[in-house]
Amino acid sequence: MNRDDVRLARAALTRVMEPSDLPGMALIKTLGPWEAMRVISGHEQIGTVREEALAELLLNEAGIRWKGLAEAAERWRPRLRDLAAARDLQVMGRLGGGLLIPEDEAWPAAVDDLGLMSPIALWFRGSARLPKLSDCVSVVGSRDSSAYGESVTADLCHSLAVRGKTVLSGGAYGIDAAAHRAALSGVEPGVCGSAAPATVAVMAGGLDRFYPAGNESLLRQIADQGLLLAEVPPGANPTRYRFLQRNRLIAALSTATVVVEARWRSGALSTAHHAAGLGRQLAAIPGSVYSAGSAGCHRLLREGAAVCVTDAEEVIELISAFGVLGPQKNAPRSDHDGLSTEDLLLLDALPIRAGASVEKLMTVAGLGSAAVQAGLGRLELLGLARRSNQGWRRARLQSGG
Amino acid sequence: MNRDDVRLARAALTRVMEPSDLPGMALIKTLGPWEAMRVISGHEQIGTVREEALAELLLNEAGIRWKGLAEAAERWRPRLRDLAAARDLQVMGRLGGGLLIPEDEAWPAAVDDLGLMSPIALWFRGSARLPKLSDCVSVVGSRDSSAYGESVTADLCHSLAVRGKTVLSGGAYGIDAAAHRAALSGVEPGVCGSAAPATVAVMAGGLDRFYPAGNESLLRQIADQGLLLAEVPPGANPTRYRFLQRNRLIAALSTATVVVEARWRSGALSTAHHAAGLGRQLAAIPGSVYSAGSAGCHRLLREGAAVCVTDAEEVIELISAFGVLGPQKNAPRSDHDGLSTEDLLLLDALPIRAGASVEKLMTVAGLGSAAVQAGLGRLELLGLARRSNQGWRRARLQSGG
Repeated sequence: MNRDDVRLARAALTRVMEPSDLPGMALIKTLGPWEAMRVISGHEQIGTVREEALAELLLNEAGIRWKGLAEAAERWRPRLRDLAAARDLQVMGRLGGGLLIPEDEAWPAAVDDLGLMSPIALWFRGSARLPKLSDCVSVVGSRDSSAYGESVTADLCHSLAVRGKTVLSGGAYGIDAAAHRAALSGVEPGVCGSAAPATVAVMAGGLDRFYPAGNESLLRQIADQGLLLAEVPPGANPTRYRFLQRNRLIAALSTATVVVEARWRSGALSTAHHAAGLGRQLAAIPGSVYSAGSAGCHRLLREGAAVCVTDAEEVIELISAFGVLGPQKNAPRSDHDGLSTEDLLLLDALPIRAGASVEKLMTVAGLGSAAVQAGLGRLELLGLARRSNQGWRRARLQSGG
Repeated sequence: MNRDDVRLARAALTRVMEPSDLPGMALIKTLGPWEAMRVISGHEQIGTVREEALAELLLNEAGIRWKGLAEAAERWRPRLRDLAAARDLQVMGRLGGGLLIPEDEAWPAAVDDLGLMSPIALWFRGSARLPKLSDCVSVVGSRDSSAYGESVTADLCHSLAVRGKTVLSGGAYGIDAAAHRAALSGVEPGVCGSAAPATVAVMAGGLDRFYPAGNESLLRQIADQGLLLAEVPPGANPTRYRFLQRNRLIAALSTATVVVEARWRSGALSTAHHAAGLGRQLAAIPGSVYSAGSAGCHRLLREGAAVCVTDAEEVIELISAFGVLGPQKNAPRSDHDGLSTEDLLLLDALPIRAGASVEKLMTVAGLGSAAVQAGLGRLELLGLARRSNQGWRRARLQSGG
């Protein structure tokens, strides 16, 4: 059996079965795609031994009882008459794409983490290759995004692309579109080719047309400079079910998923829960407590499902090998940072204008003479205390309290 | 030894020792306040047996070696000449306050969780009593608050007070002031007396004057309707050290601490870390990633130190006995909530305008006839599908995807 036959079989299977058809996936895993297709189309018997293996796989991996081929075949059969796998492959080929199958070297092994819910194959459009999992970050959010959400998304995704990360999203209006656009802005168009693409859109419908229509020019640009992916064949409508299933692919293809804006109930949260279920990193961007668009993010944070991130740097830290929280941000150091309790008491006691004697400082600070004298030495060294004819005082003005 | 003598001794000790003077606290715990005062003032010897007990306590509870009385006495001695404990008590009495001591029934046992860092006594001003720990929530934040932070604080603290919680804060400008004001607005002034006060301000300086001056009328109102607390005696300046120490009291007196706005470095974070160290609940309010005033909150969230909360209801849930996250917020249910995968596929397949046959639905949805027919029955029952002469269609318009 050559690779082309396998590709043809998988192409057909993507039209016969909906995403995450668990009995169907068990059939494909047990028989291989070519034989599975022959069994489905009635050209071959499944046989008792193979059916028992299939039933066991289905039960073990998905906890589902196999109800016999007839039951499953009934839902596949109506679609058999519409099959034209070779034509589908030609159509996508003409559009600068094709079908990526698990038998290909370029297959993203990360989606196999989905087990029986892994895709049968991935239709693509564009010449870029998917980078390795650790370089893929998905950024998702509501379609009815706010100016705040779009602004954060733009900053975040531009920076991620500049740092060589690939931004995955769903190609929808709102946060998705802002994520793709900003990622594209982060790399020079000429740099593509063999380099990792700035952005990948994982779509819920067939890649022969651009949906939603208002994102057509953006999606065309992604096809040119990045990559479009879908598990459904050309011509397939983006149904609600396929939108939900698409979310699991975005989660599986990314080492981390960042939710920028999501309402209390939101499709983006479905991606988030898939990511968490797969053991991928999950992050959420905080926002105003008055913004309905941030309620879903705050919910993820509150439930401890997501880590709070505010910029690309924090996302990179999250996905870095050791997951160590980075050094503290640049912030002005205070004069009293790192001082011992006694020296802090002494610093507080030092007058700003007139000078004070050691005895006076002992009373005000509540310290013994040795502590005051040694402390004055340290504070002087740090440039915080100054000796004068009138005694000791602070070296410079400080804000109170 | 009567209670008045003990109160007099503790009043004097609050002037001799700075807050969290660990050898001093070990001395007081070992000898009792009256004898401790006599030893400090040189009227009595400590004695070997008691000194050994003191050294053991200090080592066990604070990991600090006792360096002998002379070393500690040197820092206490300069303040002995300024002592006038009886006068301090009179001053505070005239101001409608006094000194609460651990020997009093009204002493808040919660501060004893601080161990050797517990306060010697608490100076107060106001007639209200501290409610039990589970009713006390501290709300803290930056002095240079934003309009957003003040607005969230106002909503939060008003609601907390309405629900019978006491809001603790530090009486400073910004978030603190907004917290106190909003809490006062949540209860009728007349209701005070024996009821829990709406708000308590824990101050870093002596309570004989109001600091900062710009909050004078607010602090006066808190003294009238709520309660002012401080561990330092009248006349004591609010030094930086005392501000930091005051934060541990706010944390210890509250079952939960909510940080509304805090910069990356902020005094409010010191309160937060004390709260976490004491095993109290710690919460932070999210905000814009562009707001420097929220950076400290996001840091607490990111580090997993604080729980994300957005309103009073979530704070109440946090401190409720079982700490269970409450029911989901009211949000419009979607048509497809709770539908099985097959029924969702079917709903997606139903045309909006023209009708479709069962055979057509089998093809579009990828379902067998039994699944389609049973599913149509369920969707019809839910008001989502309708039968007509032209076949099946959706019962009402739905937004796509």
